[in-house]
Amino acid sequence: MSDTQNNASSTFEPLPNSRRIYIAGSRDDIRVPMREITLNDTRKPDGSTEPNGPVRVYDCSGPWGDPDYHRDVEKGLPEIRRQWILERGDVEEYQGRELKAADDGYLSDVHRSKAEESGKLKRFDNSQRKPLRASKGTPVTQLHYARQGIITPEMEFVAIRENAKLQNAKESLKMNANAPRNSLLKQHPGNPWGANIPDEITPEFVRDEVARGRAIIPANVNHTELEPMIIGRNFLVKINANIGNSAIASSIEEEVEKMRWATKWGGDTVMDLSTGKNIHQTREWILRNSPVPIGTVPIYQALEKVNGKAEDLTWEIYRDTLIEQCEQGVDYFTIHAGVLLRFIPQTAQRMTGIVSRGGSIMAKWCLSHHKENFLYTHWDDICDICAAYDVSFSIGDGLRPGSIADANDYPQFAELEVQGDLTKRAWAKGCQVMNEGPGHVPMHMIQENMEKQLEWCHEAPFYTLGPLTTDVAPGYDHITSGIGAAMIGWYGCAMLCYVTPKEHLGLPNKDDVKYGVITYKIAAHAADLAKGHPAAQYRDNALSKARFEFRWEDQFALSLDPETAMKFHDETLPQDAAKTAHFCSMCGPNFCSMKITDDVRKYAEEQGMETPDEALAAGMEEKSKQFRESGGEVYQ
Amino acid sequence: MSDTQNNASSTFEPLPNSRRIYIAGSRDDIRVPMREITLNDTRKPDGSTEPNGPVRVYDCSGPWGDPDYHRDVEKGLPEIRRQWILERGDVEEYQGRELKAADDGYLSDVHRSKAEESGKLKRFDNSQRKPLRASKGTPVTQLHYARQGIITPEMEFVAIRENAKLQNAKESLKMNANAPRNSLLKQHPGNPWGANIPDEITPEFVRDEVARGRAIIPANVNHTELEPMIIGRNFLVKINANIGNSAIASSIEEEVEKMRWATKWGGDTVMDLSTGKNIHQTREWILRNSPVPIGTVPIYQALEKVNGKAEDLTWEIYRDTLIEQCEQGVDYFTIHAGVLLRFIPQTAQRMTGIVSRGGSIMAKWCLSHHKENFLYTHWDDICDICAAYDVSFSIGDGLRPGSIADANDYPQFAELEVQGDLTKRAWAKGCQVMNEGPGHVPMHMIQENMEKQLEWCHEAPFYTLGPLTTDVAPGYDHITSGIGAAMIGWYGCAMLCYVTPKEHLGLPNKDDVKYGVITYKIAAHAADLAKGHPAAQYRDNALSKARFEFRWEDQFALSLDPETAMKFHDETLPQDAAKTAHFCSMCGPNFCSMKITDDVRKYAEEQGMETPDEALAAGMEEKSKQFRESGGEVYQ
Repeated sequence: MSDTQNNASSTFEPLPNSRRIYIAGSRDDIRVPMREITLNDTRKPDGSTEPNGPVRVYDCSGPWGDPDYHRDVEKGLPEIRRQWILERGDVEEYQGRELKAADDGYLSDVHRSKAEESGKLKRFDNSQRKPLRASKGTPVTQLHYARQGIITPEMEFVAIRENAKLQNAKESLKMNANAPRNSLLKQHPGNPWGANIPDEITPEFVRDEVARGRAIIPANVNHTELEPMIIGRNFLVKINANIGNSAIASSIEEEVEKMRWATKWGGDTVMDLSTGKNIHQTREWILRNSPVPIGTVPIYQALEKVNGKAEDLTWEIYRDTLIEQCEQGVDYFTIHAGVLLRFIPQTAQRMTGIVSRGGSIMAKWCLSHHKENFLYTHWDDICDICAAYDVSFSIGDGLRPGSIADANDYPQFAELEVQGDLTKRAWAKGCQVMNEGPGHVPMHMIQENMEKQLEWCHEAPFYTLGPLTTDVAPGYDHITSGIGAAMIGWYGCAMLCYVTPKEHLGLPNKDDVKYGVITYKIAAHAADLAKGHPAAQYRDNALSKARFEFRWEDQFALSLDPETAMKFHDETLPQDAAKTAHFCSMCGPNFCSMKITDDVRKYAEEQGMETPDEALAAGMEEKSKQFRESGGEVYQ
Repeated sequence: MSDTQNNASSTFEPLPNSRRIYIAGSRDDIRVPMREITLNDTRKPDGSTEPNGPVRVYDCSGPWGDPDYHRDVEKGLPEIRRQWILERGDVEEYQGRELKAADDGYLSDVHRSKAEESGKLKRFDNSQRKPLRASKGTPVTQLHYARQGIITPEMEFVAIRENAKLQNAKESLKMNANAPRNSLLKQHPGNPWGANIPDEITPEFVRDEVARGRAIIPANVNHTELEPMIIGRNFLVKINANIGNSAIASSIEEEVEKMRWATKWGGDTVMDLSTGKNIHQTREWILRNSPVPIGTVPIYQALEKVNGKAEDLTWEIYRDTLIEQCEQGVDYFTIHAGVLLRFIPQTAQRMTGIVSRGGSIMAKWCLSHHKENFLYTHWDDICDICAAYDVSFSIGDGLRPGSIADANDYPQFAELEVQGDLTKRAWAKGCQVMNEGPGHVPMHMIQENMEKQLEWCHEAPFYTLGPLTTDVAPGYDHITSGIGAAMIGWYGCAMLCYVTPKEHLGLPNKDDVKYGVITYKIAAHAADLAKGHPAAQYRDNALSKARFEFRWEDQFALSLDPETAMKFHDETLPQDAAKTAHFCSMCGPNFCSMKITDDVRKYAEEQGMETPDEALAAGMEEKSKQFRESGGEVYQ
């Protein structure tokens, strides 16, 4: 695994044959980034060539993926949303909460200063920056605007972005209109399990989905650097990458780099799960440099402020932490408000008890005080705070199963019902909501999770961790969970929280982050194909066409991880010539199955058999019928 | 990926805390190998300890996994089946076909001798060995015996082997009968999609399933070294690992070592897909050293004998190759007899034409001669040959889709119908049969493959390659296909042919083989859990219990790949002490969610809440009902 560690390309090494493009929206400052992959011409057997249109892909890497952009994390990213937010006229700049030594885990200002002097703590320079918050008593959330019929620049941005694949189809038709068959546009009808995915994502469709609560655009007014994205079952399935230092290991620099690294490979959102020291500053560096939404679990920081003693937590400390993070620009909060006192002892019979860290913290607090979870009792207060900054909720699943044995049990589903209740209450306050889900679930019990969530949580987006489909493979839990993630994505889950190979074993390094992200991009894309997302199959088609035509470079460039594909190819056939050779190492130069197919095509053409696909499909039914009627004998 | 290459443990390094045991059958020479994993005691909060019974796992590694066994590949394995076969009194030793220079790809005996002198070709010394074949005109197949009501030693061996997991349950009950709850026995009811999996696999059940053709025991009378195993939807899902040298790379030694390596990690069968030179001797070395069934694609070797020119293939050359391989002891043949002339031009419209190598060879032959596939026209002859040695069929899917675009199309399903016809004809001749399946199929179109195969091929075991659920991730096709493999295994597929990370890119090395095998063990086990195979969950439960109790060593030992799990753990917490520490690197020493759960249990016990699981489940329904009736408000 750590091979990529040794050879790892840098965050800034451009992906092969790719360039950054921007699709313009209705106003000059809406510029939606995409990566455009240029392809080589097809060389036909008769020596002629045929061009292959470029393929545009969704790009999460933000300005870091633009070679023209500076690479200086100390400067942060441009505030592309600031004007959009100010134009709405419903926010104000204010002084903001004073930064405390405890925010970074120091006993006093003196301790913190020493850490700064010794270089252990480095502040991001944002002395000029004042936080924004709602000024008129109304929510400043995308949900609030959507309900009023307003299409925000964020919504338009998202609509253009979601259509990246459709752009390909349009370009392809333009370019290859005269080609005998435009096979790149071929796509199987999906089975979306009741999702309503339109042929084209319009800004109005985005608005409508946000207004119904079926999708969210996590976008804190203080995360002005954000390139908006959407999470909902009628959109592309998204993935989240967790990063974060801990009491044991890793530094601020590492975490910022992990964030850029995760988004380079396709992380749609990033959760900063830091614990221990320097939490505030780690988050500040990440936020100021992040083009994607940042999520956190605020109870983690609150716990640090009480020196790790869950029983010492108070609503006041938690509330102060929420505001601290709202002002910084965190886009969504995981809040374990559904862990109710009476559910907790019901976990005693479990194989693995409570495995969610947030769930455990709240369980300990509830038991110590024998009181109801203060996140639950203060839910309305929490909603009011988040509505004033547009921080979305990711209502936590603190009682999710930590083993196959505990899947779909009473505490898990009891909490899910409460999540549904909290969702409705948050909506009433104008807040955007998604719900977190498991965990460890065998394959045949996954769909029940999705169905219950859709019903009980009123179609608010579901956001699951895997689920892992078996417990027996630590070291490979990106795979055990990638299986479950692909399936639940197909069933309707809107965002998949990645699991790295280090799950259950240790903290992910840069390689693990990449493995996790690529595995989850696979799961999300497999789900998009199965749901029948418009033009989802375009990239598969383009890659398979390149494979068939021995355009090795194009095959690498179109893959989710070009450098690994290329490295693996070169291990067997390292010569440059082999990359354009009409054979591969599997069969050798004397024989190749793809070459033979070329002969088949010639033969079929000679036989006048260039039947369109539709006719083939129709013919199949007929032939199949004949075949069965003849009693299954092939020769009649 | 190639990290394991650098640090790879040897084939003979024993897995941690494991020992080889043998379960005795009804006769002294039935000794079924299993690996027994010894676990540490549970240390309870009050300082007392509680023993954890050992866990027995299915073991494919054969004598190589027994530390008492020699490690000399030149001696081969003991012929454990020879006596069983001879006792049946229906085979004879005979002189056998003379080995030809062309069998190993040499122009003449002189060329071959030179290769031997220079050390390029090394013969396995089996001068004493004469092949066996049927002597009485009746088939010598397990199917033939099963139909007659005979339970062979092979069937009894298989029955004991399939019950490995159930053995755990029995031991566990014996050992922990006094424990308050034997949670290790907990298992979710599965959804077997119509499979009929009994609570315990008896020899009679094995016989019955083989007799109906719903399962096969691939076991050539000349592969006397074989430890029998079974492939069928009512048994544990199996996996196959492909190895084989090619014209481009790799040696005999490498391939033999890959076979041992693949079986160490759990390969249930191995296919030798060698091409180029030394095919016969490579196979001889593999067979004489293989405890698992070996499959081949005989057309590959036949093609070498005509210098790679498909059009020069003849029935006579193919027939001679079949007999050559029957005499060596190959256990199953992939035969692409369903690639009919009239289907071939129907592939012209495909994105990726014909990608099966065997399918392409036959397509080229058919087109060159404009004749029907000679494997089809000679099917009865082929059956007669295989019945005389008990070589099982794996009827090839030469027209399987090579891309998402081509999934479930006319040529694919037309061939599948013919596979069903060939299956019935082979059964009539007393031959054991399974059917090969795709390939590249998006998730929502996988189940259709399984359903059609069950119907059209009369429940003969299905054996699929993946399927890959997207084309966009070369370098990660063990994962794109592991998703599809887990799903189709759940739906009823009996054996999953692994895909390595090198798929589409190059030849797998030892690390790739391991990655492929472990990924497919995950898929197969996830499928067993979802189907509800008896006691399948035992290992998950044991591992999760170890995880919960911070028995790190047990967690490693119980995992599919202990060395990787341990390595990943040690990257963050390398100290030996950390392996017994009551915390992990994810949360650090101050706080751990699993520790808190311990408090919850104490609390629940104080509250007298030690409710059995059944009561919990019942209570859940009630509470859930109350909750909904109250309008979803949690506080009433």
